[in-house]
Amino acid sequence: TLQGAEYPRIHSDGRVTFRVFAPNAQRVRVIAPLGKTENNGYNGLGEEPYEMAKDEAGFWWITTPPVVPGFHHYYLDVDGAQFCDPGSKTYASRNLRSSGIDIPEPGVDFYDIKDVPHGEVRMRWYFSRVTNQWRRILVYTPPNYDHDQDQRYPVLYLRHGGGENEDAWYDRAKANFILDNLIAEGKAKPMIIVMNNNYADTPSQAFQLPDQPPPHEISEITIKELIPMIDSTYRTIVDRDHRAMAGLSMGSVQTLYIGLPNLDTFSALGVFSRRPMSPEEFKYFDPYFEDPESFNSNVHLFWWGAGTAEEGIYNAAKKNLQELEEKGINSVFVEFPGLSHEWQAWRKSLYDYAQRLFRWSSIV
Amino acid sequence: TLQGAEYPRIHSDGRVTFRVFAPNAQRVRVIAPLGKTENNGYNGLGEEPYEMAKDEAGFWWITTPPVVPGFHHYYLDVDGAQFCDPGSKTYASRNLRSSGIDIPEPGVDFYDIKDVPHGEVRMRWYFSRVTNQWRRILVYTPPNYDHDQDQRYPVLYLRHGGGENEDAWYDRAKANFILDNLIAEGKAKPMIIVMNNNYADTPSQAFQLPDQPPPHEISEITIKELIPMIDSTYRTIVDRDHRAMAGLSMGSVQTLYIGLPNLDTFSALGVFSRRPMSPEEFKYFDPYFEDPESFNSNVHLFWWGAGTAEEGIYNAAKKNLQELEEKGINSVFVEFPGLSHEWQAWRKSLYDYAQRLFRWSSIV
Repeated sequence: TLQGAEYPRIHSDGRVTFRVFAPNAQRVRVIAPLGKTENNGYNGLGEEPYEMAKDEAGFWWITTPPVVPGFHHYYLDVDGAQFCDPGSKTYASRNLRSSGIDIPEPGVDFYDIKDVPHGEVRMRWYFSRVTNQWRRILVYTPPNYDHDQDQRYPVLYLRHGGGENEDAWYDRAKANFILDNLIAEGKAKPMIIVMNNNYADTPSQAFQLPDQPPPHEISEITIKELIPMIDSTYRTIVDRDHRAMAGLSMGSVQTLYIGLPNLDTFSALGVFSRRPMSPEEFKYFDPYFEDPESFNSNVHLFWWGAGTAEEGIYNAAKKNLQELEEKGINSVFVEFPGLSHEWQAWRKSLYDYAQRLFRWSSIV
Repeated sequence: TLQGAEYPRIHSDGRVTFRVFAPNAQRVRVIAPLGKTENNGYNGLGEEPYEMAKDEAGFWWITTPPVVPGFHHYYLDVDGAQFCDPGSKTYASRNLRSSGIDIPEPGVDFYDIKDVPHGEVRMRWYFSRVTNQWRRILVYTPPNYDHDQDQRYPVLYLRHGGGENEDAWYDRAKANFILDNLIAEGKAKPMIIVMNNNYADTPSQAFQLPDQPPPHEISEITIKELIPMIDSTYRTIVDRDHRAMAGLSMGSVQTLYIGLPNLDTFSALGVFSRRPMSPEEFKYFDPYFEDPESFNSNVHLFWWGAGTAEEGIYNAAKKNLQELEEKGINSVFVEFPGLSHEWQAWRKSLYDYAQRLFRWSSIV
């Protein structure tokens, strides 16, 4: 709940009370922007929109049953039109802004802010010659980064999903608190995390189409601009052994398209909730898996994960990895019971993935 | 305009086209949340709400006349209810979120992102014993902060206005770009800027009431917690000569209430668009002005500013300073022709104030 705002109010049992002032509306509902889809499963606040009821003062109310834990985007649907709630922060989603609400998961606190040393999340701007624009990134620096001036760090490049922006791993996933907690417990090596915007934003190539490789600008920005800039700006360990990439959904597609041709740059790839590949697309990657021995010794971690409830994605990932295993390609597959195409799955993906990163190094 | 969003669209002549899908609404308007008030003048998108017209597809449209340059909060008013626009970012305002739009001012580019070295805006979390909570701050570090490890910097503590939060000087005023540009031109000394949340957020003392001193927690957080934490975390110059404070509106009230009793901590105070003081309130500050010679030698810069169109504030500030001048108190008053209680005035206030800061020091 916002500082000073009374609603929406999350109850301790996971119920949520929404309140909307709309004295002249005929019908007001709380809806999740994405419903149940064949591949993605259910990932919203509720399977159906929540119908609100109006009181005499013109306020509409609903107290939901306990809702699915995790972060959910939502809209207020007012007589068939969708608006953002002045009572909640908004988030980049579907290339627009949506309201959002974060329902605690009982017994799960790995992404909460705790009494441990905290890193910073730094906003930084750089000029891209590829897209001829200033671009904004977020950079997580681990606790004590400023004080341990002799220490250098490995870097994880973390990619957001479709319709989102560079804020997503920070403002929804809480990647910084996940790492703060893991580092404090000694469960992850201290690392820098770079969160870039995954759209090229040129007139011709603004968006990535489904079942298509990302626009070439996306790869060029990462390889030719972002990584050299990060390595010259922060105290990174400048080699492939200490550079990893991962992404969720569209970001996981990009992770394969950018990572596999650049294994001289990355030694670990994380594929979170990747949409099913067509046979043609899978075939596109064949050359990178031709020499399993070389792949396995180069790629220290080839991590895939999916929620069991995003059935299309879950089944496709298992099938893809099985085919790769038959070729001799090593990988790790982690499944998240009951989770779908949603932030709780990606928080847990990062939590698992980060713990396995850079264990192969004796430097950090 | 958001990445991927088509509307609202700002035209080169300052007109704005808004589009809203609301097929069943009877009346849709674009409104500024604050209109003309006695003290504050006019500070919105337009003097009156903009009435939209519906097309056959259910979209409502308005192309405004050229609107007042600067950042404006706005809402969509749908049949008497106010919502945020999914096509715009939202901002902490009135203790809720409002949509916002930034109209360029012809010939004014001091807050634009330019091809100059850029500092970072860092998000940091600290635990407050005063309010028993984790608090988030934004910290601007100047260009090359990480590279010039021997250099230490003066610090400006910058306070937001009523109903806003710690993001405001970054997300609306663009304090970071203002400083980047000033530093690049040699017009301001490189400095750190600390942007804290100015609410205590304890159950009893969450908000500051008009015509009242801020809750004592606000001052305690600043003096006892924030400043020691900043001085031990960043390479600051730890003395009063290199510490300044300023704030807008409610933040300027806090600047006087916190700054004047703590002149052992601050040597410069900036008062941006302070609401008129009652005679009682003005009298409250009397003790701090009793010894003008001591005040003038201690306070290197006592800066007040207001827009000429926020008449109540403008006239009150001039009157206050005139009375202080009669006592022998030195001050600087800068007025902004035609501006009101609005972000364009505060951007220009910071632009002027920052250039005068820390000129008295031979260290930086």
